[in-house]
Amino acid sequence: MRRYVASRWLFAVLLMLPLLGQAEEALSSWNDGSSRQAIMAFVEAVTTEGSPDYVAPAERIAVFDNDGTLWSEQPMYFQVLFALEEVRRLAPQHPEWKDRQPFKAVLENDRKTLAESGVKGILEIVAATHSGMSTDEFIGNARRWLASARHPRSQKPYTEMVFQPMLELLDYLRAHGFKTYIVSGGEVAFMRAFAEEVYGIVPEQVIGTTLGSRFEDRDGQLSIQRLPKLVHNDDGPGKPESIDSIIGRRPILAFGNSDGDLQMLQWTVAGKGKRLAALVHHTDGEREWAYDRESTVGRLDKALDEARAKGWVVVDMATEWKRIYPFDQ
Amino acid sequence: MRRYVASRWLFAVLLMLPLLGQAEEALSSWNDGSSRQAIMAFVEAVTTEGSPDYVAPAERIAVFDNDGTLWSEQPMYFQVLFALEEVRRLAPQHPEWKDRQPFKAVLENDRKTLAESGVKGILEIVAATHSGMSTDEFIGNARRWLASARHPRSQKPYTEMVFQPMLELLDYLRAHGFKTYIVSGGEVAFMRAFAEEVYGIVPEQVIGTTLGSRFEDRDGQLSIQRLPKLVHNDDGPGKPESIDSIIGRRPILAFGNSDGDLQMLQWTVAGKGKRLAALVHHTDGEREWAYDRESTVGRLDKALDEARAKGWVVVDMATEWKRIYPFDQ
Repeated sequence: MRRYVASRWLFAVLLMLPLLGQAEEALSSWNDGSSRQAIMAFVEAVTTEGSPDYVAPAERIAVFDNDGTLWSEQPMYFQVLFALEEVRRLAPQHPEWKDRQPFKAVLENDRKTLAESGVKGILEIVAATHSGMSTDEFIGNARRWLASARHPRSQKPYTEMVFQPMLELLDYLRAHGFKTYIVSGGEVAFMRAFAEEVYGIVPEQVIGTTLGSRFEDRDGQLSIQRLPKLVHNDDGPGKPESIDSIIGRRPILAFGNSDGDLQMLQWTVAGKGKRLAALVHHTDGEREWAYDRESTVGRLDKALDEARAKGWVVVDMATEWKRIYPFDQ
Repeated sequence: MRRYVASRWLFAVLLMLPLLGQAEEALSSWNDGSSRQAIMAFVEAVTTEGSPDYVAPAERIAVFDNDGTLWSEQPMYFQVLFALEEVRRLAPQHPEWKDRQPFKAVLENDRKTLAESGVKGILEIVAATHSGMSTDEFIGNARRWLASARHPRSQKPYTEMVFQPMLELLDYLRAHGFKTYIVSGGEVAFMRAFAEEVYGIVPEQVIGTTLGSRFEDRDGQLSIQRLPKLVHNDDGPGKPESIDSIIGRRPILAFGNSDGDLQMLQWTVAGKGKRLAALVHHTDGEREWAYDRESTVGRLDKALDEARAKGWVVVDMATEWKRIYPFDQ
């Protein structure tokens, strides 16, 4: 009998060890402000059995925008910087680019002409560098760039320009039985090139903008070829649409940072039961960047109004985050 | 010290109990023929640590076709039977259908005219009954039908016309750390209406044919509206394309039953390392149906040749399955 009791006790202690560790460490890069408190209260409410707000683990879907929410997006979306660099790398295979805009502007570093080419020009550059190859080859290209490229301001790899408090939040949610998803305007294969290693988010939990593709059997050599055709723009209303199509159930937590995330947040909170919608507000011109209503990249205007009107969590980066990046001390 | 040893022993026994139960029960509706042996040898090889064929749990992706692989598909794909029944149910709201083909043929039970309307006619019926409503409403319609409709031959609900040996296989794979997916020509929301309850496959692991959709905000009432527009036909080459787009990694096991599954099986076995491709061969005219090369529903011709040439698993339903349906004794 005593032996049995002792082993039960040992067993109970073993079971509790991870919880003890967690309680000490949870969200340690967050100041104990309103955002951290709201997040922890939400997680406690939906994960405590017997709580009126309890949500079964299978329903604990949490969705995160990527650019500006999990990593920085200044001075320009990192994927666009990758596309511009790919134009330079691939130029020898495309001699016609020397005389053709917007490629000519990229190769000559003619920022004025490039800026004048607008969204249409950028899309042409993205199409040229993101298609015409297999998914495997493309992911290889993205990984090569991510391994060598450095951010112009920090001189760090882009994959280190991720937000330490958000990495902790992803871990915290997963430790509480949440399934964490990226739902982002970024192209899906580009994000899969690093999401598992950097965020611990597996490929099948990354949702994004998608290009057309074609299964190809070339004398028994099989591949999925990427086509220069936009199939789904995962921005604004495209976010709840892809959530419905790919996840097939409504998230209970959504985190974004810009007007492109508004519909995803609305869709999340409109579900029954307790929900959490949150925005990262870029208020820190010292350690990161400060921008919102007037920014062309990651504009936050309507979503900020709605968040304030509805009492959503708005994370004031400058005051609520002790550290921004993992490399910060 | 003795107490410590005793508790370690107790702990080890506790850990082994589920495994002992499993060894007795695994795939009990399968005769111990070549298919069962091949499946179990494969699972042992990829899950035994230290084995040269070991695959980490995160990479253990298994994909299953649905119609004819997890449930029956005769005398016609069950989803088409649902669509025909929906025409009858919705007819009062569409008085114009009385005079318009192919709806007129359905309402008058005019099989000849309906058959003459061909694939085009069926697609029109599917579009009319599967769109023009929200995803939530559509899933409600599908569940209402599934709860009341009976299969013309067995007089059982369609959700009982599932293959007991395949239910056991899904459980067996999940118990060995596999993530089980449906990848099917069926429309994705229709399958989500029952996949979790019947197969234990959560909505986010159901991939299928998709329609266009639109996020709608009607005075604050949010919904995802289904559009009468085919966005992805998840058949043939569409299967590896959706696997690449949605899962983002290659399965190590694929199970189908028809030529529409061929590319998915090819794509699976073309990956590095140990792989398993398998077909259900409908050879049992007594307990289920017997059909292959000449069938219009679930034709199995090219894939059968390739399976035999390459030594894939071909399940001879008549000799390898002890039971077909859960209701069989």
